[in-house]
Amino acid sequence: VVSAGTYGYRMDLVTLDDIRAAAENIRGLAVRTPVLPWLAGDGLALKPECLQPTGAFKVRGARHAVACLPADRRAAGVITHSSGNHAQALAYAARAVGVRCVVVMPEVAPSVKIAGTRALGAEVVLVPPAERESRMAKLAAERGLSPIPPYDHRDVIAGQGTVGLEILEDVPDVDVVLVPVGGGGLASGVATAVKALRPSAAVVGVEPEFAADARDSLAAGSVVRWPVERAYQTIADALRTPLSELTLAHLSARLDGIVTVSDDEIRDTIGRLARSARLVAEPGGAAAVAAYLYHRAELPAGRTVAVVSGGNLDPQLLRSLL
Amino acid sequence: VVSAGTYGYRMDLVTLDDIRAAAENIRGLAVRTPVLPWLAGDGLALKPECLQPTGAFKVRGARHAVACLPADRRAAGVITHSSGNHAQALAYAARAVGVRCVVVMPEVAPSVKIAGTRALGAEVVLVPPAERESRMAKLAAERGLSPIPPYDHRDVIAGQGTVGLEILEDVPDVDVVLVPVGGGGLASGVATAVKALRPSAAVVGVEPEFAADARDSLAAGSVVRWPVERAYQTIADALRTPLSELTLAHLSARLDGIVTVSDDEIRDTIGRLARSARLVAEPGGAAAVAAYLYHRAELPAGRTVAVVSGGNLDPQLLRSLL
Repeated sequence: VVSAGTYGYRMDLVTLDDIRAAAENIRGLAVRTPVLPWLAGDGLALKPECLQPTGAFKVRGARHAVACLPADRRAAGVITHSSGNHAQALAYAARAVGVRCVVVMPEVAPSVKIAGTRALGAEVVLVPPAERESRMAKLAAERGLSPIPPYDHRDVIAGQGTVGLEILEDVPDVDVVLVPVGGGGLASGVATAVKALRPSAAVVGVEPEFAADARDSLAAGSVVRWPVERAYQTIADALRTPLSELTLAHLSARLDGIVTVSDDEIRDTIGRLARSARLVAEPGGAAAVAAYLYHRAELPAGRTVAVVSGGNLDPQLLRSLL
Repeated sequence: VVSAGTYGYRMDLVTLDDIRAAAENIRGLAVRTPVLPWLAGDGLALKPECLQPTGAFKVRGARHAVACLPADRRAAGVITHSSGNHAQALAYAARAVGVRCVVVMPEVAPSVKIAGTRALGAEVVLVPPAERESRMAKLAAERGLSPIPPYDHRDVIAGQGTVGLEILEDVPDVDVVLVPVGGGGLASGVATAVKALRPSAAVVGVEPEFAADARDSLAAGSVVRWPVERAYQTIADALRTPLSELTLAHLSARLDGIVTVSDDEIRDTIGRLARSARLVAEPGGAAAVAAYLYHRAELPAGRTVAVVSGGNLDPQLLRSLL
């Protein structure tokens, strides 16, 4: 565990009130997931965000960010360049309020992701990978679209923080919350809610060994980016992204530590969750559970909840793990 | 659809107040499952009871039945002879209040089920299949244990009815509720809650073609038992059991109809639920969803919720369906 909290970054951090406002906004669109006792997990409980529409917690932040836009900007539509779970979540959130959503994707994106995003009513613009950001900026300016990034955004972080709020509602005496860290939006929001409501509880981030850039960033006090060829080794595609300045500031102030897990541990955990928790988790979604199963000695003791952050898994991979 | 409601059986049926009392009793032990919008289901929402501890709705009825025992009888312990989901649910409910649970199982029961029940603290007594009922009666008398059957019991039905109560809380304008029918306890409870709170909503039972004994029983006006060699053809092991007089009386008065599904439809639905709803369902648990996917023309129109009643699936079967 690398201890955090000593990093002196000054930035306007999300507050508990921001998260409470998000909880109002997401009602009816995001599912109020329960906390599941997991008999095979020997004291571990699960927060199954893989059950959200579009299969990940991302719908919370996307919905809240769309809701927070001034009415005239919202009416003009939104845009993003994620090709992962955030893209489908934003398309879903935009469709729910009847506004246009444009998703800029690399030409090499899997056709199933392109089709999935289109099926939710979004316009998909395919570009060479290096042009994603510039094309998004250009389209946003031309069409008056509001960019909603996957994690580098206060409203998105506040939306993801509702996961922490709900954990505290259901398990007020929780001692440890385990949360996967990719770009850090989920961990930032969850840590904000949990530490505000129960300072004695520990919030621990979980990363794949192959993409432990958040651990390094917290230790360095600045955003450390791992080379793409290194981070892309991990099976946990949702956790390959680096932090942003904003999420680093949140995690520095509010996260109690980081634990890393191996890809083999993640694979084994996916099979165990399917067999005995009746949940299909994607690799990034299983990471926090893997930390509990394989690294308990590195964790604080006590009543623990792990966030199963997503479930968009290649069926062939699941098949191979059963 | 075979219409019901014409069967004149007189029996003391479970009431909405009974179910409301059960809702109080199960709090904290059964999970308050959400209703999940299912994007791939084209308007269908899911009530994922496979997420309950021990993997099925059964914990609701078991918990309530244990809670309803007079204190002195409860202290002496409980007994059942189910080898399916009810056995583990009763063991779990008994352990939660610290009372003895004995489960009489056929010697031929799968060792994984025996081990699972023992792991929950129950005493498993193995007997020749034909002696299950007599041995249970003998043990109950000798040790003062209270028999808690899987469905032929008012408190069990009231407990299962909390599924219907929760569906109405989350989807007050529901038009159709689809519920699997095995022994009929779940369908009896759900129909009681739904028809009391929203008489305009239709509650439709779903059976496998190979075990359509509830359809026949409703048509005949008395409990029809299918030959074991016929009912045991279906993959949906949880739905092979016949109704009891008590569940037939409830279904006759309160169910709007029965739809049957094929085993192939069930198999296909298990794969679809894993791939796009991130849920592992057992065959009986997938039956109501299969009715929606394959027999929509036989169903009333409108906003529909299907109960995914359980998820205790052989991992090899899931693997073969992915």
